[in-house]
Amino acid sequence: MDLGTIVGLVLTLSLLLGAMAMGVGLGPYIDIPSLLIVFGGTTGVLLVGFKMEQMKNLAKYFMIAVKPPQIDTPELIKKMIEYSTKARRDGILSLENDANNEENEFLKKGLSMAVDGNEPDTIRELLEVDMEQSSERHKANAQIFAQMGGFSGAMGMIGTLIGLVAMLLNMSDPSAIGPSMAVALITTLYGAMIGNIIGAPIANILQVRDSDEILVKTLIIEGIMAIQSGDNPRTLEGKLLSFLPPKERESQFN
Amino acid sequence: MDLGTIVGLVLTLSLLLGAMAMGVGLGPYIDIPSLLIVFGGTTGVLLVGFKMEQMKNLAKYFMIAVKPPQIDTPELIKKMIEYSTKARRDGILSLENDANNEENEFLKKGLSMAVDGNEPDTIRELLEVDMEQSSERHKANAQIFAQMGGFSGAMGMIGTLIGLVAMLLNMSDPSAIGPSMAVALITTLYGAMIGNIIGAPIANILQVRDSDEILVKTLIIEGIMAIQSGDNPRTLEGKLLSFLPPKERESQFN
Amino acid sequence: MDLGTIVGLVLTLSLLLGAMAMGVGLGPYIDIPSLLIVFGGTTGVLLVGFKMEQMKNLAKYFMIAVKPPQIDTPELIKKMIEYSTKARRDGILSLENDANNEENEFLKKGLSMAVDGNEPDTIRELLEVDMEQSSERHKANAQIFAQMGGFSGAMGMIGTLIGLVAMLLNMSDPSAIGPSMAVALITTLYGAMIGNIIGAPIANILQVRDSDEILVKTLIIEGIMAIQSGDNPRTLEGKLLSFLPPKERESQFN
Amino acid sequence: MDLGTIVGLVLTLSLLLGAMAMGVGLGPYIDIPSLLIVFGGTTGVLLVGFKMEQMKNLAKYFMIAVKPPQIDTPELIKKMIEYSTKARRDGILSLENDANNEENEFLKKGLSMAVDGNEPDTIRELLEVDMEQSSERHKANAQIFAQMGGFSGAMGMIGTLIGLVAMLLNMSDPSAIGPSMAVALITTLYGAMIGNIIGAPIANILQVRDSDEILVKTLIIEGIMAIQSGDNPRTLEGKLLSFLPPKERESQFN
Amino acid sequence: MDLGTIVGLVLTLSLLLGAMAMGVGLGPYIDIPSLLIVFGGTTGVLLVGFKMEQMKNLAKYFMIAVKPPQIDTPELIKKMIEYSTKARRDGILSLENDANNEENEFLKKGLSMAVDGNEPDTIRELLEVDMEQSSERHKANAQIFAQMGGFSGAMGMIGTLIGLVAMLLNMSDPSAIGPSMAVALITTLYGAMIGNIIGAPIANILQVRDSDEILVKTLIIEGIMAIQSGDNPRTLEGKLLSFLPPKERESQFN
Repeated sequence: MDLGTIVGLVLTLSLLLGAMAMGVGLGPYIDIPSLLIVFGGTTGVLLVGFKMEQMKNLAKYFMIAVKPPQIDTPELIKKMIEYSTKARRDGILSLENDANNEENEFLKKGLSMAVDGNEPDTIRELLEVDMEQSSERHKANAQIFAQMGGFSGAMGMIGTLIGLVAMLLNMSDPSAIGPSMAVALITTLYGAMIGNIIGAPIANILQVRDSDEILVKTLIIEGIMAIQSGDNPRTLEGKLLSFLPPKERESQFN
Repeated sequence: MDLGTIVGLVLTLSLLLGAMAMGVGLGPYIDIPSLLIVFGGTTGVLLVGFKMEQMKNLAKYFMIAVKPPQIDTPELIKKMIEYSTKARRDGILSLENDANNEENEFLKKGLSMAVDGNEPDTIRELLEVDMEQSSERHKANAQIFAQMGGFSGAMGMIGTLIGLVAMLLNMSDPSAIGPSMAVALITTLYGAMIGNIIGAPIANILQVRDSDEILVKTLIIEGIMAIQSGDNPRTLEGKLLSFLPPKERESQFN
Repeated sequence: MDLGTIVGLVLTLSLLLGAMAMGVGLGPYIDIPSLLIVFGGTTGVLLVGFKMEQMKNLAKYFMIAVKPPQIDTPELIKKMIEYSTKARRDGILSLENDANNEENEFLKKGLSMAVDGNEPDTIRELLEVDMEQSSERHKANAQIFAQMGGFSGAMGMIGTLIGLVAMLLNMSDPSAIGPSMAVALITTLYGAMIGNIIGAPIANILQVRDSDEILVKTLIIEGIMAIQSGDNPRTLEGKLLSFLPPKERESQFN
Repeated sequence: MDLGTIVGLVLTLSLLLGAMAMGVGLGPYIDIPSLLIVFGGTTGVLLVGFKMEQMKNLAKYFMIAVKPPQIDTPELIKKMIEYSTKARRDGILSLENDANNEENEFLKKGLSMAVDGNEPDTIRELLEVDMEQSSERHKANAQIFAQMGGFSGAMGMIGTLIGLVAMLLNMSDPSAIGPSMAVALITTLYGAMIGNIIGAPIANILQVRDSDEILVKTLIIEGIMAIQSGDNPRTLEGKLLSFLPPKERESQFN
Repeated sequence: MDLGTIVGLVLTLSLLLGAMAMGVGLGPYIDIPSLLIVFGGTTGVLLVGFKMEQMKNLAKYFMIAVKPPQIDTPELIKKMIEYSTKARRDGILSLENDANNEENEFLKKGLSMAVDGNEPDTIRELLEVDMEQSSERHKANAQIFAQMGGFSGAMGMIGTLIGLVAMLLNMSDPSAIGPSMAVALITTLYGAMIGNIIGAPIANILQVRDSDEILVKTLIIEGIMAIQSGDNPRTLEGKLLSFLPPKERESQFN
């Protein structure tokens, strides 16, 4: 589990809450109506801009950001080299059991198609469509958080404007100006916090996770193609390792 | 019907109107001249930047955002598998009636061309041109709402500047400064609301709807091509299901 | 003639001038030095950033935005179907007179090349280069207005800063602060108006006009290619109509 | 020599300096420490973000913006038609002297390669690499000015914040607040001026110059290819003229 | 070693610290809680948005910006011409020792594959995957600094809002308003400094370094391909020199 996201969220919130507490205490920074405007307004506007079914899964996307599926790429490459060696030695049908027991869904699908004797072009096209469509969906999900960033800022500003207008109409009591203004600013503060602690960073990590998944799936597609065409396992390994950073390239043939 | 867009609009507006009412009441937030400046000015500037015929359909585009055409993708795939099976068994001419009775215009057009014996390349090119040009028009329509976002903000700022200048020239009565400033800020508030509740989110959902339509049309093109070339319906189903998220992939052959 | 652009400009200006007049009257909003800074400064900076020959044609580009060349696309398609039918019946040389009398320069050029017996690849390449280079020039022209938007805003801000500094140095007379500040803000107002009423919307409509022209030229290129290769006019019509929105697709063969 | 850039710089600066002089005189707007912060800080940050060798040529790039190499495109086309006619009549070797005396370096290189009997594919690839790499370098240079725009604005804001903090700590003497604030704002003014009079417009004109150069080099590559393959000079002229705007297309065969 | 980055950092910081010292002294600009909010908050948010393993190498990426690997491109070209000449004269196997002793890892890998008798297509594909994946990783690293720019600004604003709210609630003592406001602004100042002195410029120089590396690797790939296919060293040199700016093109055959 990637602790970074959790650590980052806790660290940032602690620092900001600490800064509030050190000054006038946390109390004045908690304002339920302001929270409703910014949080509710942002949710409302996201409901306008995205499909209901996308919004329903928002919590799930957040959890993918926080706790991504772990894939051990070097291990995956090792496994594909083994499949490749076995297929070369005993024929591709010998991988039938491996395909059935494979846990990685994408690799399983590709292996099964190869074992079933589909054309290489058919397999490649189908796996690529699968990979691209899945990436499109991930990008659309990351977009929700990216737009959350923009909209929470806007809702914060709208809330502050509503508060400012109210304050400006009631300036007879000068001593009330400061507190009114403080309350008006709180929606801007909430908007900036939601946008910059949740919105933009979660959108970014979701894109990072998607890039990782595309890399893994590309490795699998290349591997399946090589297994089916009976390529030399050493050549296959050289190719797959080229996708990794130099220091992670460890050949099992040495 | 996708309720999200309506729910979102109602939710956001309720929260903001509630926040206004809770403070100094809704009255001070309603200012007809300000509304004219922001709403009229934004409309005027959009008339400059887009073609009259695009602007005339603005309400129609809005309704597409709110109430999109419903397409049951798994059902569509099922239907195409049936056509594929029938064409394989009885020849492509057996689909003539199905083509005539098909309700989906795009599928109907493709089927008819296939039944009429057009070349595969001709059919694909024609359907792709149709799909791409239609998507171009959708993108142009989404652009109107996207630019509405920017322009309403600018008109809000222009209105506030006009009000500020007037206020600054009449500072002899200090008690009038607050209310004058409040009125001046109202155009900025209107601009931010139009831009962030209508403009940007509607532009976004129109793009989401367009992506959905492109996906459906891509499925149809792939299906027509396979039907015409007499591909195995199982292979076709495997390919079409690859476009869907894993949990929606349900084969009718199991 | 597309009235939208004119109507939009008049509507927006009327609303804003009306808002000014309703408050303190138009007088205080008219300040020649401010106009010189924003208008002159923006012109100056555009002269730095674009070529003299581009700047010289600024008024011409503006007129293209306001009064674009009218092209009746369905009529154009009809004409090309007629040419196609004639060429199929009487040979391509029979189009010589039509080519000479054709008013659309682009269609005339393509027809003449076809009549002169040039290779299809040569004709397509030449027409495509013509179309792309012309579109590049249009995009560069739209850029001038797009950048005018940014620069007029910046000049407005620079003018306001110049005014603010002057005001801050002369605060001995408190009653002069308001009017000085008002004058300082007027450049920002001018900058926002030029940028959002002329700059950005004109840039947008120029791009819309360019897209329209590209569509028409694409239709012509497809038509010329089909005429030269003697395609069936019905097939050609089907293809050309695919470029139009469904409701404008009217076949002359029905 | 393109006077626009010079005229634009002089015009803009005159207007702004005039506006300063008309108010409180030029004196208060000249502040050496502010100039050091904005100009020095921007230079410093550009040194961080670009390579020393790029920064060293900054003045040279500026001069390219101000005084670009003049290329008479119609004249160039005419010359290439002449080379084409000569090569067709007397063989490509007859161009050896012309290649040696050619002043345009890019045309000279291409002609020499053709005269030396290199393969067409080799010549095209080499010239295209040359054109693309040179354009990459130009774009990188334009980037320096584009980023100068952003950074000078940021340095202006940083300077103003430094001044504001100092002012806020010394508010005991109210009469000093105005002048202190004025000085604080001057860095923002400098930043906006550097960014919008030098940074952004010079970046833009450098990109315009690069597009012009790419057009000329594309013409040359097309010309060399046609000369080598012995194409009809009329056909070549038709092709080359398609790159120009209609009104500059003047055939020498009429 | 490229001194520009270091010189730029020192210059910018000196100027800004000097400006602070000249006014009210450095003291008031140093505020540990503000530093914690901006620096800690930015770090926290980056931890949310990037993978832990990327964040761990942040210092390493910074050092690559400051002290990049030095590659003498003309020298590299010279070496590849020598390899090419040798391979042409004595066969490609004669390069085995050179491959083993080559220091440039990328060139070594390519040479070894060529000496081992791999297919040209295999070598090119493998080297290109290596180059592209490595560039993807570099771009992802530059993204950390680019986003640091945005997030530090946002954290600065959040800190200022927290301070402003506290200040507005304690306006009973007017003499405290100035200093409180000054402290509140300091986080904005820190945010702008981190973003514009470290974030954006380091992101930029990392992209410049990546472009340089891609250029070198492209040269190597072209060189290996030519060496393996036994191209004329002169032709190879002509091609490789086309990648360099004209004044660095020095042939060793003259």
